[in-house]
Amino acid sequence: MSNAETINSLGENESLKRTIARLNVSEHALVGPGDDSAVISAPDGRFVVTTDTLVEGHDFKLDWSSGYDLGWKAVASNIADVAAMGAVPTSLVVAVTAPGHTQISWLEAFADGLRDACTKLAPGCGVVGGDLAASEKVMISVAAHGSLEGREPVLRSGAQVGDLVAVAGTLGRAAAGLALLQSGNTDAISAYDDWVNVQLRPKPPIAAGVEAAVAGATSMLDLSDGLAKDAARIAKASAVTIQIDPLMLQGFEAVLEEAARAIDASESDWVIGGGEDHSLLATFPSDAQIPRAFKVIGVVLPAGAAPVMLGANALPEKGWDSVKG
Amino acid sequence: MSNAETINSLGENESLKRTIARLNVSEHALVGPGDDSAVISAPDGRFVVTTDTLVEGHDFKLDWSSGYDLGWKAVASNIADVAAMGAVPTSLVVAVTAPGHTQISWLEAFADGLRDACTKLAPGCGVVGGDLAASEKVMISVAAHGSLEGREPVLRSGAQVGDLVAVAGTLGRAAAGLALLQSGNTDAISAYDDWVNVQLRPKPPIAAGVEAAVAGATSMLDLSDGLAKDAARIAKASAVTIQIDPLMLQGFEAVLEEAARAIDASESDWVIGGGEDHSLLATFPSDAQIPRAFKVIGVVLPAGAAPVMLGANALPEKGWDSVKG
Repeated sequence: MSNAETINSLGENESLKRTIARLNVSEHALVGPGDDSAVISAPDGRFVVTTDTLVEGHDFKLDWSSGYDLGWKAVASNIADVAAMGAVPTSLVVAVTAPGHTQISWLEAFADGLRDACTKLAPGCGVVGGDLAASEKVMISVAAHGSLEGREPVLRSGAQVGDLVAVAGTLGRAAAGLALLQSGNTDAISAYDDWVNVQLRPKPPIAAGVEAAVAGATSMLDLSDGLAKDAARIAKASAVTIQIDPLMLQGFEAVLEEAARAIDASESDWVIGGGEDHSLLATFPSDAQIPRAFKVIGVVLPAGAAPVMLGANALPEKGWDSVKG
Repeated sequence: MSNAETINSLGENESLKRTIARLNVSEHALVGPGDDSAVISAPDGRFVVTTDTLVEGHDFKLDWSSGYDLGWKAVASNIADVAAMGAVPTSLVVAVTAPGHTQISWLEAFADGLRDACTKLAPGCGVVGGDLAASEKVMISVAAHGSLEGREPVLRSGAQVGDLVAVAGTLGRAAAGLALLQSGNTDAISAYDDWVNVQLRPKPPIAAGVEAAVAGATSMLDLSDGLAKDAARIAKASAVTIQIDPLMLQGFEAVLEEAARAIDASESDWVIGGGEDHSLLATFPSDAQIPRAFKVIGVVLPAGAAPVMLGANALPEKGWDSVKG
C-alpha cells in the first residue's frame, strides 16, 4: 500500500472501493453505495436536489487546495443549497475526474474531506454513490439531497415588502482568503490564515436553514456569488427592492480590515461582492422571531430603480460568473 | 441571436436560461429549475439516485458526437441505472463544463438531446436542475432519480441458484458502432449506421426494468461495461456462478456479423465484451413469467471456478474500466 499507487494502476473499481471505505454512512440510506443506484429515505414524500461542480483552474488550484480541502468544499457548497431551501441535507452523490497519475492517497484524503464535512456540518448526511473517471483535469461534480420534514420549501421568490433582510454566517471572508492566496504574500497568508481557511474549507451555517424555515422565512438563498449578486436574485424573483444598511455591514468589514490593508485590497469589496462564504441570506416578516444565527442587514422595499440598494445608492451586480469568471 | 454567440459572451445565467427554456418539465417536480434546489415528489417515501460522468476524449469525441447526441446519451446511460433497480426515472440534474468559446447553439442542441431522451425513453421524467462552468474540456455529469412505486429495489445481490439469466435490449451494437467509428472506414460507417447510432444515442429498454421487478426479478443491473464484466458483478454480489449459453448469443452475433467482416473485427467480442448498450441483465426464478422484453441467455449455478462461464469455459472479465480505459 505505498503512496506511489495511482488511480490508473489500481483501476476504477479498486480506487472506488478504497475511497468508499473511508466514508461515513448516510443515516437516510436504505441502500448505500455499490449497486446501480442508492435508495434514500424521503419520509414526507418529497426530496430536494441540487448540483454544483468544481473545476480545476477555474474554481480551485491544486497548489492551494489539498484533496481533503476539495472534498470538504464540494460537500459544503452543495449542502448550503439544500439548507437554503429550509431542508436537512441527507445524502450526496459525487462524481470525480482526475488524471490517471493521481495518487490514491490524494483520493483517500478527498474522501476524508467528504466524510468530515458531512459529519461536522450536517450530521446524518453521507455520500451514497459516486463515479470516478480519468481526465486531464480534476473536476468534482456533486448532487446533494435533503428532506423538508413536512415544511414548505423556502424559495427565492417569497420576499414581501416590509420584511427584514438577514444573513447567517460570514461575509467576505472567503473572498479575503482568495485574495490573500492570489497575493502570494506569504506573511499575510500566514497572519490571516483564518480567512484562507474559510476559502479552502467554508463552514456554511447549515442548521440555520431549518431554523429560518421554522421561523417563517419568506425567502432564502445561499451566498455563493456575493451579497450584491445574490441579493439581486431574491429581489428579482420576488419583484421587490432589497435595501441593505451599510452600517449593518461594518462589523463584517471590520474583521477583514487588517488583512485588506496588508495586501492593499478593499474589505468593503470583499463583503459586498465576494462569493463562496455560502452563508444564508433570508427575509423574515418584521414580526418574526428571527433565529439568533441571523443578523439583520436590511429591509425589503417596493420594487424601485435597482434590485439592490446600499443605503441610498443602487448596488451594481458585481460578483462571480462561473463561465466568465 | 447569431450562431456566433458563445457561452462566454453570454455568461452562465443567460446560457442556462436559453438551455432550460428548451427542456421538458418533469411531471414529478414540485419546484423546478431556478432556485437553490428543486423539489421532487417521492410518493412512496423513498427515492433512488445514481450518478455517471461523460468525459471528452475518454468517453466521447466531439468529432463523432454532436451536442444532441451527448445530451441523449447522458440521459440514457443514467436512467438505465435507475431502471436497473426496478424504478421509474423521475428527474435528473445535469452539470456541464465546456470551453468558453463553445457556441450557444451547441448547448441548445445538448438540451434538445436531454429533452428528447427523457420524453422518448422515460415519459414524465425531466431535468430539474443544472450547472454550467467553464473548462478546457467538455464534461457531463448527471445524477438521475427514480421512484420504486412501493416495490422493493432489485439489487445485484439477489440471484439464486436455479434462476434463469435474461437480457432486455441489444448486446454488442454500441461496441460495433464504436469500432466502426474508430476504423475510419467511411463506407462501413455509412452502411452500418444503425450500430453507430446505438453508440451515439443508446436506447436502453427503460420500461423493462419495472416489468422485471414486477415479474419477480431476483437481481438486475444495466450492461454498461460489457456482458462478461457486468455478469461477474451479479455473480460476485450474489455469491453464485452465472453460466451463459453460447447458443443463446448467436442471434445477437448474427446481426453484427457483416459489420464485423467489413472492418475485420469479431462480432463475438462485441457481444461478450462490449459495453454501452445499457441493456438490462436480470435473473428470474425459473417459474417466473419472464417479461417479453427479456431473452433467456443462461442459468445461475452454485459458485464455481469462475464467476461467469460461457458454456463449459470460464469467461475472463474483459470490459471497460473508466479510469484505465
